[in-house]
Amino acid sequence: MNLVETTINAIAPVDRSLCAPIQAHLDNLTKPRGSLGQLESIAMQFCVAAGTQRPRIGRKVIYSFAADHGVTDEGVSAFPKAVTRQMVANMLNGGAAVNVLARHVNAEVRVVDVGVDDPLLDLNGLIRRKVRSGTRNMARGPAMTEQEARSAVEVGIELAIGAIAEGAGLLGTGEMGIGNTTPSSAILATLLPCDVPEVTGRGTGIDDVTLKRKIEVIRRAIDVNRGLLDTPFGALAAVGGLEIAGICGLILGAASRRIPVVVDGFISSAGAMVATKMCPHVTGYLFYSHRSNEAGHSVFLDRCGIRPILALDMRLGEGTGAALAMSVIEAAIKIYNEMATFDSAAVSRKEE
Amino acid sequence: MNLVETTINAIAPVDRSLCAPIQAHLDNLTKPRGSLGQLESIAMQFCVAAGTQRPRIGRKVIYSFAADHGVTDEGVSAFPKAVTRQMVANMLNGGAAVNVLARHVNAEVRVVDVGVDDPLLDLNGLIRRKVRSGTRNMARGPAMTEQEARSAVEVGIELAIGAIAEGAGLLGTGEMGIGNTTPSSAILATLLPCDVPEVTGRGTGIDDVTLKRKIEVIRRAIDVNRGLLDTPFGALAAVGGLEIAGICGLILGAASRRIPVVVDGFISSAGAMVATKMCPHVTGYLFYSHRSNEAGHSVFLDRCGIRPILALDMRLGEGTGAALAMSVIEAAIKIYNEMATFDSAAVSRKEE
Repeated sequence: MNLVETTINAIAPVDRSLCAPIQAHLDNLTKPRGSLGQLESIAMQFCVAAGTQRPRIGRKVIYSFAADHGVTDEGVSAFPKAVTRQMVANMLNGGAAVNVLARHVNAEVRVVDVGVDDPLLDLNGLIRRKVRSGTRNMARGPAMTEQEARSAVEVGIELAIGAIAEGAGLLGTGEMGIGNTTPSSAILATLLPCDVPEVTGRGTGIDDVTLKRKIEVIRRAIDVNRGLLDTPFGALAAVGGLEIAGICGLILGAASRRIPVVVDGFISSAGAMVATKMCPHVTGYLFYSHRSNEAGHSVFLDRCGIRPILALDMRLGEGTGAALAMSVIEAAIKIYNEMATFDSAAVSRKEE
Repeated sequence: MNLVETTINAIAPVDRSLCAPIQAHLDNLTKPRGSLGQLESIAMQFCVAAGTQRPRIGRKVIYSFAADHGVTDEGVSAFPKAVTRQMVANMLNGGAAVNVLARHVNAEVRVVDVGVDDPLLDLNGLIRRKVRSGTRNMARGPAMTEQEARSAVEVGIELAIGAIAEGAGLLGTGEMGIGNTTPSSAILATLLPCDVPEVTGRGTGIDDVTLKRKIEVIRRAIDVNRGLLDTPFGALAAVGGLEIAGICGLILGAASRRIPVVVDGFISSAGAMVATKMCPHVTGYLFYSHRSNEAGHSVFLDRCGIRPILALDMRLGEGTGAALAMSVIEAAIKIYNEMATFDSAAVSRKEE
C-alpha cells in the first residue's frame, strides 16, 4: 500500500462516546447552559476529534501551498502569473496578510512550493517540495497525471505528520496560486456536483467579460477531461491544482493522527471536498474557518450543511481565514479548560 | 453644565475627510482590493473614529458593570439574585468566561459594582462605585430616580476617561446582573420603539410560563412609568438598570475622547441605544461585537441596520462578545499597519 491509502485507512471516525462527559463538563461551567453557543460546539468537536477530555491546542501551524496553473493561459485571472512567486517571497518576508494575522493569533505560517512555475525558486524559509512547475492547461487536457496529483497529496500528508511530530495540535490550510479559483470551481462543480456558474466567481477581481470566459473555460476543462472525473483522485488530477492536492493531503495526514484542521476559504474548501470524498470520516476533523465572499463558496457550504466560524466577507486566501478562526477555536478550548465550575466558584445553579 | 452634558457636547462626528487617504492605503496593501472585507471596513471605521491615519490600539480594557434589579421580585429570571455577587467574585478570581476570553485576547477585565444588592460587598480588585443597592421594582414605579441614573452614567464616563488616560485605545462593555435582560428589553421596546415581545427573550434560560410573565411584567413597567419615558434619560431611569446606565456612560466618555468602544451583546446594546439617543454622533465610535442568541437582539440590530462582527450564537454577556471582537478589531488594525505594499514587496498589480 502506498502512503495515501495507508493514511486514509488510518483515519478513524471521531469518538462520539466522549460527547456525554464533555457535555457534562461544559454544563458544569459557570454560565447558563449552552450560552457560549458555537464556542461550546467547537470545544465539543475538537475534543471528540482529538479523542480526549483534556484538549490541548499545542502549536498552531498554517501550511500555505503555492502553485501555478496552466489554465491561466486562457486569461482567467486579473493578476499576472508572476504574482505567485512574488507573493511567495512576500509571505516569506512576513509582509502578506496571512503573516500579519498568523502573528496576531500566535500561529506559524509555513510556505510550501508544491508547484510554482519557476524551476529555480529558492528562497530563505521556503519548503521546497515542487512536484512540477505549474499544472498543464486543463482546458486542453488533464492538469496533472494521477501520479503527479498523488505526489502532491503525499507532500501534504508528510508535512502534516511532520508538524504533528513537532507538537502541532491544530493545523490550518492556505494557498497562493494565481488562477487557482478556476480549478477550485471545476473541482466543486464536478464533486458536489453542480452547474459551473453556481460555483464560479470573480477570484481576485475579474470583470464580467473575463467571468464569462472563466465559466466557459471551466466547462471546456470538464468536457475535455470527461472520462477522467469519476473518482476524487481523477478529478483532482484532471481539473485540480497542485496546491489543492497539497491541502487535501494535509487534511488526510492530520485526520489520520486525530489532529483537527482549519480549512481556509474557497480554494481550501475544494481541497477539503476532495479529501472528504476520499474518506468521509475526515469531516469530523474539519473546522471551516469562514464564509468567503468568493461567489460559490456559500453554494458549497450550504449544500454540505456547513456553518463556518466567521463571516467577514473575506476572499483573500493564503490562510487568512484559517488564522483568524484558529484564535476562536483556541478561545473555545480555553473556555473548556480554564473556566470555573459552579462548585469551585460557589455559584448557585439555575432554579428548576 | 454637569459631567453628562459636558461629555455629550464634546462628542464630535467621526472625521470622514480621512476616508480617502485611508482607503488609498488599504488599496496599496498586497492583496486584491477589498479582499479582506470587514477587516478593511473595521480598520476604516477605527481610523475615522480615532481621527488618525496611524491607528494604535493601545491597552484593551473591558468594563463589566454589575448591578441588581428590583424587578427580579416578579420572578423574571432563572437564577437567584445572589448569583450577581457570586459571579462578581468569580470574575474577580478570573474564573468567569469573560476572564478566559479577555486573557486570550490580551485585554483587561475591570469589574465595577455600580449597583449590586449587597451594601457590604468589598472584594479584592472590585471597583466600588455603587450608586444604590439594586434598582427598585420597575413594575411598580421608576427603577431609579433621574439623579441615580445620572450618577451611574457619570461612573461610566469617569471610568472611560480614566482608562484612556492610562493608555487604553479600545474599550469594551460588559455586565453582570441577574434579571437584566428585563430592563434591557424594556429600554429597547421604549426607544426603538417596538412591541415588547419582539425584544423579549429567555435570558439565562427561562421556560415558556416565565417568558409570558416577563413580557407581562415589562408591559406593566412601561405602563406604570408611562409619563417618564419621553427622554432617553427618563427611560433609562424608569425602566433601565444601573449597569445599563454605566455602559451608556462608558460609551459617552470614550466617544468624547475619540476612543472606539466594542459593545458586547443584548444588555450592552440597550446601553448603546440610550447613548446614541442622547447623542447620535456616538454611532461612529461603536463596534457591535456579535449577534447575540438572545431573542430580540437581532430585532435591534436589523432595525438599526447594524452588522455585528461575529455571530457565534452566544448569549452570556459579561463582556464575552466584546473580548472576542476586540481581537478581530486588533487584527484589522495590524493589517492596516503591518502589511507590505505592492511597491515595498515588489508585487505586480492587477492587469487593468
